Amino acid sequence: MVAEAFLGTSILSGILAIFVALYTFRQVNQADEGNERMREVSALIEEGAYSFIKVQYRNLMAFTLVLAVLIAIVFSGFGIAISISYVLGSLASMAAGYVGIIVATKANRRTAAAAASGGLNPAFNVAFKAGSVMGLMIAGIALVGLGSLYWLWNSLLPGVEATELWEIITGFSFGASTVALFAKAGGGIYTKTADMAADIVGKIEQRIPEDDPRNPAAVADAVGDNVGDVAGTGADIYDSNVASILAASILGAAIDATYSPALPFGLLPLVIAAMGTIASVIGVFLVRPGPSGDPGPALNRGTYLTTVLFSVLVVLTLSFLNLDLTIALFAIAGLLAGVFIGFTSDVFTSDRGLGGFKPVPNMVVAAEKSAANLILSGYSYGLLSVVPSVIGIACALVASFVLGANATSVGLGGVEGGIFGVAIAAVGLLSTNGMIMSSDAYGPIVDNARGVIEQAGAPREAIAACDKLDASGNTAKAITKGFAIGASAISVLALFAAFISSTRHLPFPELVVTVVNLANPFVMAGALIGALVPVGFSAMLILGVEDNSERMITEIRRQFAEDPGILEGTSKPDYDRCITIATTGAIRELMPGTVMAIMVTIMTGTFLGLNALAGYLGGAVITGLVMALLMDNSGGAWDNAKKIIESPDYDHNRPRYEEVHENSVLGDMVGDPFKDTAGPSINTLLVVISLTATLFLPVIAQMHAWLTGLI
Amino acid sequence: MVAEAFLGTSILSGILAIFVALYTFRQVNQADEGNERMREVSALIEEGAYSFIKVQYRNLMAFTLVLAVLIAIVFSGFGIAISISYVLGSLASMAAGYVGIIVATKANRRTAAAAASGGLNPAFNVAFKAGSVMGLMIAGIALVGLGSLYWLWNSLLPGVEATELWEIITGFSFGASTVALFAKAGGGIYTKTADMAADIVGKIEQRIPEDDPRNPAAVADAVGDNVGDVAGTGADIYDSNVASILAASILGAAIDATYSPALPFGLLPLVIAAMGTIASVIGVFLVRPGPSGDPGPALNRGTYLTTVLFSVLVVLTLSFLNLDLTIALFAIAGLLAGVFIGFTSDVFTSDRGLGGFKPVPNMVVAAEKSAANLILSGYSYGLLSVVPSVIGIACALVASFVLGANATSVGLGGVEGGIFGVAIAAVGLLSTNGMIMSSDAYGPIVDNARGVIEQAGAPREAIAACDKLDASGNTAKAITKGFAIGASAISVLALFAAFISSTRHLPFPELVVTVVNLANPFVMAGALIGALVPVGFSAMLILGVEDNSERMITEIRRQFAEDPGILEGTSKPDYDRCITIATTGAIRELMPGTVMAIMVTIMTGTFLGLNALAGYLGGAVITGLVMALLMDNSGGAWDNAKKIIESPDYDHNRPRYEEVHENSVLGDMVGDPFKDTAGPSINTLLVVISLTATLFLPVIAQMHAWLTGLI
Repeated sequence: MVAEAFLGTSILSGILAIFVALYTFRQVNQADEGNERMREVSALIEEGAYSFIKVQYRNLMAFTLVLAVLIAIVFSGFGIAISISYVLGSLASMAAGYVGIIVATKANRRTAAAAASGGLNPAFNVAFKAGSVMGLMIAGIALVGLGSLYWLWNSLLPGVEATELWEIITGFSFGASTVALFAKAGGGIYTKTADMAADIVGKIEQRIPEDDPRNPAAVADAVGDNVGDVAGTGADIYDSNVASILAASILGAAIDATYSPALPFGLLPLVIAAMGTIASVIGVFLVRPGPSGDPGPALNRGTYLTTVLFSVLVVLTLSFLNLDLTIALFAIAGLLAGVFIGFTSDVFTSDRGLGGFKPVPNMVVAAEKSAANLILSGYSYGLLSVVPSVIGIACALVASFVLGANATSVGLGGVEGGIFGVAIAAVGLLSTNGMIMSSDAYGPIVDNARGVIEQAGAPREAIAACDKLDASGNTAKAITKGFAIGASAISVLALFAAFISSTRHLPFPELVVTVVNLANPFVMAGALIGALVPVGFSAMLILGVEDNSERMITEIRRQFAEDPGILEGTSKPDYDRCITIATTGAIRELMPGTVMAIMVTIMTGTFLGLNALAGYLGGAVITGLVMALLMDNSGGAWDNAKKIIESPDYDHNRPRYEEVHENSVLGDMVGDPFKDTAGPSINTLLVVISLTATLFLPVIAQMHAWLTGLI
Repeated sequence: MVAEAFLGTSILSGILAIFVALYTFRQVNQADEGNERMREVSALIEEGAYSFIKVQYRNLMAFTLVLAVLIAIVFSGFGIAISISYVLGSLASMAAGYVGIIVATKANRRTAAAAASGGLNPAFNVAFKAGSVMGLMIAGIALVGLGSLYWLWNSLLPGVEATELWEIITGFSFGASTVALFAKAGGGIYTKTADMAADIVGKIEQRIPEDDPRNPAAVADAVGDNVGDVAGTGADIYDSNVASILAASILGAAIDATYSPALPFGLLPLVIAAMGTIASVIGVFLVRPGPSGDPGPALNRGTYLTTVLFSVLVVLTLSFLNLDLTIALFAIAGLLAGVFIGFTSDVFTSDRGLGGFKPVPNMVVAAEKSAANLILSGYSYGLLSVVPSVIGIACALVASFVLGANATSVGLGGVEGGIFGVAIAAVGLLSTNGMIMSSDAYGPIVDNARGVIEQAGAPREAIAACDKLDASGNTAKAITKGFAIGASAISVLALFAAFISSTRHLPFPELVVTVVNLANPFVMAGALIGALVPVGFSAMLILGVEDNSERMITEIRRQFAEDPGILEGTSKPDYDRCITIATTGAIRELMPGTVMAIMVTIMTGTFLGLNALAGYLGGAVITGLVMALLMDNSGGAWDNAKKIIESPDYDHNRPRYEEVHENSVLGDMVGDPFKDTAGPSINTLLVVISLTATLFLPVIAQMHAWLTGLI
């Protein structure tokens, strides 16, 4: 009875969120599209986005199909069910990304139009509404997908235990995370490729302005912002959310199976996520710029209100269920860690710093000395920024574990209860993802609107309004990035625990993982190999951007050479071809790394055993977290150091200004693939390999058992 | 009886090595000092080296004294014995560094003189002999120090078990490694400070040539090469060697205590090290340039011969003791890993690459595009270079473990036997350190000789001879660097095991570490915090170089401003003041990081417990290894990319040559603190924190027991 109520609440909250998202989409679509020029500029981007989606999704479909067939074949038992879950997970993730990209490209000109006709507030409304489409969409799809799959397999496969049902649903999460990897890492390669190639041939070789429509890569570049920032980040947060709910459900169901408490812990994560989603739906409606018209506080107020609402809803639900409120504390521990990491990222990447500690201003001083000083100080501050964030994660980990290990009053307690506490902390941290993502997606939309309004030659006040919107978007983005890393770190730690818990259902008692003993050289070897995964993957992504931009540069030069009319403005360049080249090239650069990460995961388990595989996941998380924070924050700091040097407050008449500015441009160029390609992809990569280990566990165990002569 | 024979052999081999080193020192000192000009140029450097030593050693002495008193107070029981061991360890390490710096500064002009008067072969002989003083010295001191301390405490403290004796001797290793940290990291900051400051004020501001004696920092800069490359690397390898013998002895003595086999495993590591030292002494005498006169093959031949000799000696010893030869295999597994890592470093940092895979030539192509491309590709290749090296270490780890776990015929077997196998692999890898270090120290000596001969205006043939010597020195250096990282990684893994083993003797049975379970959130939190240690430390070192060079720049400018005669060449600059500023500044930058690393280690154990402390060490090793390899290899690759672009084979008339060259200079400037300061210091840092954990274990356990209410 409670179980059905839990499930029903979750699915209905998900449907509510999707409904609100679609309704908002319609509202955005009906907004004024602005004047001819705005429509012209932005129609190209919208068309470009469709081209991108066509190519990208064809490739994704092919990848999904191949993997679906493989899964169905390789798995005995529930192979078909896992395969179906996997395909649904991929499709759901693709649908969310689709909606996100489309609404963003539609919203650009509409935000610009609102700014031109009505000023700040109407423009803010359009942009934030468009952002909330993506935010509510991903929150809703996660709930509907997970909830209805559980209901489906529970009905179709009677007698199968809840733990096993959740292991089948791992396929859904795996689908979400592989698509997210393509969206985030592939999108990251795509964006930087287009950006770099457009600049090199356009600005440097042909000396035409940035975003000039004569540049065949101009549309590809503009589409990139929507692809990387809206769809990529959305997919990343979505997949962390799905994975955190899944991990907590696996661990909760295991507790249910052993102690059969009154409350189904296996479904509790869904309910918590549902409360967060409801809070986000309400929160989104409460976001209104105040009379001062400054949009920054409005966004923050929305986030705080949603958090408070979420807490109230959780407490109400727990009271209604006659439960101790300890469970709310887990979720709050997670939320605090997320806020702390966001705050740290802000200290290390903003021009304010914290008190006398001012990393970015110090980097500006370094840029005044030499380019090498700037690179070295940015890198060093990036390294330093890892320290507080990781300490925050370690604290949340220990706090939620201790809480869970002592929560005997709610039927938890012990090591298992403690680990479930950690998993719930991850769910709590991600529960309000609908609201967080809404604020985040708002950023690139206003950024693009600013581009549209400038090119359309709108009046100065309209541009100023867009500038103001843009500034608040950047702050929101910095915070979301820290949030995304913290969320995925704790989710991956929960997945790590879920993987270990899943080994209990293997048919080989010898292979059950009870401890992941780092003093065992096999486990240490696994951890060392795991540490290599984010390291090698980042290297491949950064080198991939270079190779891919090389291809696109060749194409742009070819177009200019074959049709001199393009540069004269008499004939239209072939934008689509550039988009296609950047898209397929990105997938081509990404594929080896992805396949390798999946293969190495499976091989480590097969050859070194499941304990070593657990060590491998541990090593990957530890190094991955360090690398992700280092690259995200140093990249962000270089970007802002450049912005300071370009800002009107900086003395442009100082001696050697040109050189200092060049140094800052170099820093930003180095930081771009750090912060937009490699850094944020590591989160998703960690989720992918953790899910690979859990999903393929039966197959890996079988192969290892065969190799070691167990069967 | 066997024990006495073992101990006697080790101490005698150590004395032999020291004797040969001192005899060789005398030979080098008696060699021709060259003409007036050579003596003049190099006398300044020698005086500068003494200034450096005076300041550096005064600081080191103070640090040692404070810590010695603290240790004597804090430890109950054997506090005084540990404190004495610690002081002796520091002093021994300082003595080795002293001899190394002095012989190197003496050898510069003598090598130059030999090149001028006799050509290639005599010059090679002087340089290599001088290098071998450092090599044999560190190998000998390790054996004499460890062997005689064991003999001493065994005689003075009758009835104390061997395991406890080795824990007292941990103080010796701790002394060696703290001094090594100052030598390596402090020396690294010193060197880069002097280099950077001399270039900025001299070359850029005043436009005087590099190494110009009018530059007040010229001597500091020249001393730096001897300080960082000779004394720093020597101290690093020395401390890894001592730590590996110590770790293996702790683990061996624990096996002795449990199973009391015929052979004292606790003393076996010393014997293996003694065989390696004897092999090195013989090997050093066999290094002779062939009739072709190319010194590169001569160095390599020396290394190979020493390895073969070592293997023969080990096999003979084992046969003489009627032992299975399996033990020889452990050592060989370690040696193979070391050779493999050296080979990998070479592929990633040399201009040859491997087959079609050519990282450095690809980086030259990137430099032709833009500085950002060069930085990004160097960083990416640095990341990629981590992959094969770490796999090599993982393989050596698993192989030696499996060998040891199955070596029941020699009285090993089981998990403990396996872990002892890993420890012996580390000892094996480091056994021939006398020879390896001789080849390595040769490098900076010929490099400096080249500087002396050029400034002394020697004939062209003599310079060409020095160039040839220099080229072979660079290859030897690349290989040693890889070797040093591999050696320290396996040593630290052995220390990790020794730490766990040491917890067995604690008075609190509850605190004994049996497994380091990464699935336990406390252990994972420990691992996350451990991962931060190399990350934060590297950041502090790189930022330290910037701050320290700032101080030195101020001093150079002051001298130029206050005495215009300096630039006119009429008055002598105050070289000593620059040296003092760079030396004290380096220590000032290093001290917070060092104290923090020691404190965090102790605090993690105190607050989170010993399991978490073990996790902490594990996390530090995993991330530290990645960071060290990344920074060493990307730094080396940027350096060589610049060398290619500056070489006569590169087309200096290509379009934009100036810009390409500037890009490569930038890459090298970024890489310098990576490869000469932060990267190589991480090895030593890992040893320091591992020894801190082991040495302070009783104190940490006491505090943790008090905190958790156990006492």
